[in-house]
Amino acid sequence: MLHYDRLQQHFLKISRLGHLGAICGWDQAAMMPAGGNSARGEAMAELALLIHEQTTALQLPEWFAAAETEPLDADQQASLKAMKRRWQHATLLPGDLVQAISLAASTCEHAWRSQRPANDWQSFKANLSKVVDLAREEASIRAAHAGLSSYDALLDIYEPGVTTAQLDGVFGDVKTWLPELIQQVDEKQATRSWQVPQGPFPIEQQKMLGQEAMKLLGFDFNHGRLDVSTHPFCGGVPTDVRITTRYDEEDFMTALLGVIHETGHARYEQNLPKAWAGLPVGEARSMGIHESQSLFFEMQLARSREFTQLLAPMAARALQREQDPAFRVDNIYAFNTRMKRGYIRVNADEVTYPAHVILRYEIERALIEGDIEVDDIPALWDEKMQAYLGLSTQDNYRDGCMQDIHWTGGAFGYFPSYTLGAMYAAQEFAAAERTITDLRGKIARGELTELFNWLHDNIWQKASILSTEDLIASATGEPLNPTYFRKHLQQRYC
Amino acid sequence: MLHYDRLQQHFLKISRLGHLGAICGWDQAAMMPAGGNSARGEAMAELALLIHEQTTALQLPEWFAAAETEPLDADQQASLKAMKRRWQHATLLPGDLVQAISLAASTCEHAWRSQRPANDWQSFKANLSKVVDLAREEASIRAAHAGLSSYDALLDIYEPGVTTAQLDGVFGDVKTWLPELIQQVDEKQATRSWQVPQGPFPIEQQKMLGQEAMKLLGFDFNHGRLDVSTHPFCGGVPTDVRITTRYDEEDFMTALLGVIHETGHARYEQNLPKAWAGLPVGEARSMGIHESQSLFFEMQLARSREFTQLLAPMAARALQREQDPAFRVDNIYAFNTRMKRGYIRVNADEVTYPAHVILRYEIERALIEGDIEVDDIPALWDEKMQAYLGLSTQDNYRDGCMQDIHWTGGAFGYFPSYTLGAMYAAQEFAAAERTITDLRGKIARGELTELFNWLHDNIWQKASILSTEDLIASATGEPLNPTYFRKHLQQRYC
Repeated sequence: MLHYDRLQQHFLKISRLGHLGAICGWDQAAMMPAGGNSARGEAMAELALLIHEQTTALQLPEWFAAAETEPLDADQQASLKAMKRRWQHATLLPGDLVQAISLAASTCEHAWRSQRPANDWQSFKANLSKVVDLAREEASIRAAHAGLSSYDALLDIYEPGVTTAQLDGVFGDVKTWLPELIQQVDEKQATRSWQVPQGPFPIEQQKMLGQEAMKLLGFDFNHGRLDVSTHPFCGGVPTDVRITTRYDEEDFMTALLGVIHETGHARYEQNLPKAWAGLPVGEARSMGIHESQSLFFEMQLARSREFTQLLAPMAARALQREQDPAFRVDNIYAFNTRMKRGYIRVNADEVTYPAHVILRYEIERALIEGDIEVDDIPALWDEKMQAYLGLSTQDNYRDGCMQDIHWTGGAFGYFPSYTLGAMYAAQEFAAAERTITDLRGKIARGELTELFNWLHDNIWQKASILSTEDLIASATGEPLNPTYFRKHLQQRYC
Repeated sequence: MLHYDRLQQHFLKISRLGHLGAICGWDQAAMMPAGGNSARGEAMAELALLIHEQTTALQLPEWFAAAETEPLDADQQASLKAMKRRWQHATLLPGDLVQAISLAASTCEHAWRSQRPANDWQSFKANLSKVVDLAREEASIRAAHAGLSSYDALLDIYEPGVTTAQLDGVFGDVKTWLPELIQQVDEKQATRSWQVPQGPFPIEQQKMLGQEAMKLLGFDFNHGRLDVSTHPFCGGVPTDVRITTRYDEEDFMTALLGVIHETGHARYEQNLPKAWAGLPVGEARSMGIHESQSLFFEMQLARSREFTQLLAPMAARALQREQDPAFRVDNIYAFNTRMKRGYIRVNADEVTYPAHVILRYEIERALIEGDIEVDDIPALWDEKMQAYLGLSTQDNYRDGCMQDIHWTGGAFGYFPSYTLGAMYAAQEFAAAERTITDLRGKIARGELTELFNWLHDNIWQKASILSTEDLIASATGEPLNPTYFRKHLQQRYC
């Protein structure tokens, strides 16, 4: 047996263990009663340890060395490379550092839950400093190993191949036109009026509506489910994808668009190539590409004027509001494309969202590279918020740098994926539109097959066989080009 | 560190892996879409292999030998013994036999699904013969190791310490009075009339009713859930017990009594001693004791005249039938204590149930001990069915020996646990009644705390620290005494 085949079998075994963790993780968020948490946490930690042991098994270096001399085709080489990357990431960090990071992150996040409502930056920053110190240590180990700068080494975890050099170009460009665009949209929308659909919208009807939208969008209910959790997510395994949402009786649209967003993630997972199932090369390419699929569904598709022609009457029917003027296509379109500058990233519309991400990118990069310290964050945050969105966060830590949990958990390098995803999505949609005759007309008529086939062939089936750069180039004919995102925003909002 | 402590840590680790399997097993039955089954099966098999590897780890014999010389108190000795038993059961059978049994069982069960509706004994018996051959092989290995007869060695899997000598006494006694008792009840009930509550009963109302009954019965919803599955069961882990039921719009009572039955299992699991959580000695004592708890809740409690005074009005309220005469206490009591001779064990009432079990016990014992062959089953079944219940199953294999899946899966030795459970339950209830003043009055008034405290102290908290015999003796003052079961039936039915 080839060492390559031995490696594949070994990683398939790890994937089967991961399957149990994915289902139990979903269960923990969507099903488990609170009292089950402590024992579940221990069981999940035991599994994580086991998977770590298997991923760092002693025979692997020898197997990799042997496999690299074996005759492999291009796909097999990609698979070998992906397995080796997984192994290297697992072996790179000393065990006591991993443990220290995990402890500091959970301490910081746990305290944050009460510190945020109390706007207590002083207490929070002490915990955050420890997380930052450890993240710097992690970054320097990763940087030395990969021959990258510290922050690039963290970026590489989420977006293999993406560098600060590239991001500086892309985000630098956005900064030249975004503030003006926001200003323009502000002015344009000031003269526009729309109605907020008024609840109550019974949960059961909302659930049926979400499932109807998932069906229209091709979600395979034989290989997945929709449930409820406090923080919506897409989990499970490719053969059994579990998406979640949360319902608000006064606002059906947030849940509906959330379901559509997660359906984008889900279709990617459900349509990864079966031939590579369970292997690292058969997994989704990166966080940014994953987000490009959810944003393709939510932003490119669901908030478009054409899709609104399907969505508005579907919602009116499901919620028994066929006579309600708030459910007319024009109103729903206006409602779903309203822009509002705000403090909170997760509530931001697609126009102002990049400003939130660029702000975080600039701060976290400087933090990891030692150019600033934790103490400097609030002032910098306020300054950038003023510059990008014209909002002040002075003394308002809770709606400023304490608003989300990426940093408390030490996930520096993650934020750029959100905006990269939005850019990839716009570029993908533009490419699909060049290939598919009358795409927008077809969307308006609910003829979505060709569009999904395009995503299937160009994104989903490629998994991690190509690099992100090659994937985007092969799908759209060029590397990442943020012009498409800008054009998309101008077309929809100006 | 004592070797005893090392062993405990090792078995706690195995238990944490088992936790993931328990939750994913529940998910498979209650949540998973059909398309997820194949990958789930592979993941569960991988986990089973891993748990088997850990349970048979090479260092264990040495650790057991060392631990046996260490100074341990009585509870610790019980824990050591329980761990050793777990290890011995795992190491006893050669791997290829385990695999052959698993294959033969799944082949037999899979074919049975279509052979049963087709009443196709000829095809079924070929598969069953293989299962029986392998079960005999398993039994002889277990028998040689334990110094028991073949069938006793299988009994010991489910009911440690119970032997055919004991069962012959107990079941022999039942056979002397049961046919006559059935005759008497038949005659008595012939003159009695009752109404079947007429549906439809909306599922949502039934679910609320089930949850209300669970609350009354002390189910801890912070450590468990109620869901739906095709075959109701009690699963999950002690900190998070998952019970299931299935609903029929025309018949609410089957689901309700099923929920109460599973609640009995659940309270046992939820109230096992925390100090021994995750260790073999901290698990439920045996199948029979587990069944004694579900039958205590369903038969001793829920079908009693006193509990019916709570249950009937609760059901009438939940199902909005307060004016329906079928929901009067007397009618519900008559309905829930009706007796009917029938072919199918799982549909049997508590009076005729033991006849089904004794029939299977006598046949499977003879089969395992080589006194009969598979070909002899149908004639023997018919003969015993005639003798015990006055029913013929000639040429009716589907409602005879092909009705359930214990034998297709090779689970010979399991059936006696059902009737042992019914007997233990009656004996436990009698003991509780001697201890608790005016127990029946308290039940009728919904004052159940003392009764649950009695079960908590005498059964649940004992886990597997005592042998079954000592557990029953310490709880009730004497070893298993089937007189209590007989008295219970006479009192309720004659």
